[in-house]
Amino acid sequence: MTATPTSSSRSYPAGGEAFPHKDLIGIAPLAPWQILYLLDEAEQWVKLNRSPLKHNDALAGLTIINAFFENSTRTLLSFEIAGKRLGADVVNMHAATSSVKKGETLIDTATTLNAMRADAIVIRHASSGATQLIADKVACPVLNAGDGQHEHPTQALLDALTLRDWLRSGACPVAKEEFVGLKIVICGDIRHSRVARSNILLLTALGAEVRVCAPPALMPYDIERMRVTPFTDFNQAIDGVDVVMMLRIQMERMSGPFIPSAREYRHLFGLTPERLKLAAPHALVMHPGPMNRGVEIDSSVADMLERSAITRQVEMGVALRMACLDVLTRRVRGVEGWGAPL
Amino acid sequence: MTATPTSSSRSYPAGGEAFPHKDLIGIAPLAPWQILYLLDEAEQWVKLNRSPLKHNDALAGLTIINAFFENSTRTLLSFEIAGKRLGADVVNMHAATSSVKKGETLIDTATTLNAMRADAIVIRHASSGATQLIADKVACPVLNAGDGQHEHPTQALLDALTLRDWLRSGACPVAKEEFVGLKIVICGDIRHSRVARSNILLLTALGAEVRVCAPPALMPYDIERMRVTPFTDFNQAIDGVDVVMMLRIQMERMSGPFIPSAREYRHLFGLTPERLKLAAPHALVMHPGPMNRGVEIDSSVADMLERSAITRQVEMGVALRMACLDVLTRRVRGVEGWGAPL
Amino acid sequence: MTATPTSSSRSYPAGGEAFPHKDLIGIAPLAPWQILYLLDEAEQWVKLNRSPLKHNDALAGLTIINAFFENSTRTLLSFEIAGKRLGADVVNMHAATSSVKKGETLIDTATTLNAMRADAIVIRHASSGATQLIADKVACPVLNAGDGQHEHPTQALLDALTLRDWLRSGACPVAKEEFVGLKIVICGDIRHSRVARSNILLLTALGAEVRVCAPPALMPYDIERMRVTPFTDFNQAIDGVDVVMMLRIQMERMSGPFIPSAREYRHLFGLTPERLKLAAPHALVMHPGPMNRGVEIDSSVADMLERSAITRQVEMGVALRMACLDVLTRRVRGVEGWGAPL
Repeated sequence: MTATPTSSSRSYPAGGEAFPHKDLIGIAPLAPWQILYLLDEAEQWVKLNRSPLKHNDALAGLTIINAFFENSTRTLLSFEIAGKRLGADVVNMHAATSSVKKGETLIDTATTLNAMRADAIVIRHASSGATQLIADKVACPVLNAGDGQHEHPTQALLDALTLRDWLRSGACPVAKEEFVGLKIVICGDIRHSRVARSNILLLTALGAEVRVCAPPALMPYDIERMRVTPFTDFNQAIDGVDVVMMLRIQMERMSGPFIPSAREYRHLFGLTPERLKLAAPHALVMHPGPMNRGVEIDSSVADMLERSAITRQVEMGVALRMACLDVLTRRVRGVEGWGAPL
Repeated sequence: MTATPTSSSRSYPAGGEAFPHKDLIGIAPLAPWQILYLLDEAEQWVKLNRSPLKHNDALAGLTIINAFFENSTRTLLSFEIAGKRLGADVVNMHAATSSVKKGETLIDTATTLNAMRADAIVIRHASSGATQLIADKVACPVLNAGDGQHEHPTQALLDALTLRDWLRSGACPVAKEEFVGLKIVICGDIRHSRVARSNILLLTALGAEVRVCAPPALMPYDIERMRVTPFTDFNQAIDGVDVVMMLRIQMERMSGPFIPSAREYRHLFGLTPERLKLAAPHALVMHPGPMNRGVEIDSSVADMLERSAITRQVEMGVALRMACLDVLTRRVRGVEGWGAPL
Repeated sequence: MTATPTSSSRSYPAGGEAFPHKDLIGIAPLAPWQILYLLDEAEQWVKLNRSPLKHNDALAGLTIINAFFENSTRTLLSFEIAGKRLGADVVNMHAATSSVKKGETLIDTATTLNAMRADAIVIRHASSGATQLIADKVACPVLNAGDGQHEHPTQALLDALTLRDWLRSGACPVAKEEFVGLKIVICGDIRHSRVARSNILLLTALGAEVRVCAPPALMPYDIERMRVTPFTDFNQAIDGVDVVMMLRIQMERMSGPFIPSAREYRHLFGLTPERLKLAAPHALVMHPGPMNRGVEIDSSVADMLERSAITRQVEMGVALRMACLDVLTRRVRGVEGWGAPL
């Protein structure tokens, strides 16, 4: 690999080489220029999706299996639309009612999907590491759509795509195009959140300054090892940031040992209009959805036309997933090499 | 709009204008000529569906999302087949297992579907008005596949298509082609039925004489405001009618305050062969399905080859839904204007 | 029909005639040359599925409905991929949540699917005979994807395709290409297994020597009427066989009247490495999946690279189902007549 990343990490290797990963398991294995390459590739699909006839036959003839062992309407819809818009034959395996329930091992399921000659498998699973386990057993690319408390790489990538789009619009006086120097706070259940984990990895890799904020019981034990600044006081954490990224609080955490009550949580960690005023005046609001309105985020904030990027995140999600499916299936399609940098 | 409906309501506006509704929420907002236009448009799809290769690429490149918040195998199948036969990328959102369960608001779900750049959204929901709520929030056409006790417009339109096909066959000596003068009785749970509501609106708009028949507890309070004649005695209601439209009785109504028992219901409101003899000798039998055989309709009536239109209703359903999807997505496809009247 | 089967049953009727069955309900109605014809037809799809772009538009424009009244992830996936790879419009009817639950009869469901103008219906149902019942009511081909304890014909056909592929590889010194003289033991719940039933019918029709092995309580009462040799001692049954076909033990049989415990079952009827040594040294291991590892089959046997055909069975399944869908829909597509024998 003759990768020649510049200081801005925006150069690709000299021509003719393929994307160096078979799978997309997480952000951790990606070099900064690989992250940026996926974002650049997504731009064309953002444009396509905004055109009247939003279909391309790049993946025609390929079979994509969405194997969701954990329910997720949004992410499944997003991947399904991405695959179909690229012309692939897309099938969903609803694993909640699958042979897994009949006692089959995960590896046997993986071997089965491989034997059916899938060209890409998208996996969501409640166990951290399940996606890697499957990727090791199958010949085709595996895309992680969220595994346990490990990673959710397409979420972090779509968040970055949304952020970069905002930076390029000039709305942020601090950073223009570059993530270097951008101040971001991620607030919520940092400890159990794969969205937080993938976003921390991606944002720090691109040079952003990341703060995390959580109740003490929801802060990871090994937070010291991450290149972030931890806070337990949201008012301090949000002070002067350019981006506020809220996490969804799982219902099951909203009582018992972690959080006394939803009301208490909103009081201390909810994004209210008052609290948003502590951030920079141009600060962008993000949330991976689905939102608990009135808990981690107030409706008046979520619906701010100029400030909230929540709907744009969903839009970027389809485009980003199209890019990942396209790039990772190039080998099987005989379409090797990098496209020209945008 | 230079609409010039004739007495028979069968003329379209002078050329070049688009169908004047973004959505299909109900029959209520439709002018008679708009109803007839949708029926006319469906004719070509009836023909296509009867041909060996029943596929057309009119909607190729478009994304249709079927968001069913209430289970319905038939209607979902019908819409899914309609969309796929027209070449669209069709995805189903099984809302029973969706983020809605995670506490997401209906409007947030709608905004999400919109952000994924759907070109048409088909909604079924247990709450009256849910479809309108979503339609107001999204840019693309929304088709109501049944919302609470409000409307089920494609059912009424497919019933009308079935009826018109029968009238044109000459089987009815009273009316030929025209709905004017046609005597129809709708029998069942008029009060809670969106099928009844949409059919009453459509049939009276086209000039049919509509009688409704229900047990007193299942008759709407505001029946006086509808242009129908209410009956509580089915033997009187069915007397001399050209068409008998039976409604499905929901299991949950079959005990308790509404109906003493299924047996009692059949005795008083079931369509038995004896009771059918009270209708006109040529009378057509309709039912939206699925049937409770032996409750609201006897098997010997449901299976009458010459009299029962129940299977044809299913067939017309696919064609009619193809017409609605085609007409409502013309704007996004840049296919404006009316086709020549058939 | 001018069928002229030779001793090897490998000739087709003189040209120009269509496959003589509308449906594929079971192996029982098929003549040996019809079985072989389906296997021959599958070869081209095996090749296609191993190529980079595994798509063909043979069934473009056709509507295939997968109506699964019983959950089955693998078989549904296999049929769905088969249909989509052939370019058909494929829709799944998840009957677990269907109108059937609302009290609709199976025949009414069949009539509905027929009225929607399906070109092929794939049925899985918990009741023996349900598929035939539906096939009698609909105009289009019906494919049995497993009905009660009756038949599972595509499983037997894919097993035969896997076996023939192995025979042709020369790995079996006894039989080459031909099933005549091949010694096969089928072990497991012979009494309740549709897989066993279809395989016994197919393998004996092609001239293989079939042994069956089961605990006494899981042996069919009418085993004498089948052309097989029954055993209750697996060590005797497996002695010198060329092929060991294990059946999946249903969890619900693993206690109570049939089997004392999973551990006991493994001890007496599980395929352990020691027991496999009693078979011929070249013996092939088969299992329809999903496996209960450590119960009916040990992991060390299931994963033997040279001996286990389990993964290949899955691969052959997609190709075989493509062949069945292709052959049975030729009439509607106007593609009559036999292809040239391979």
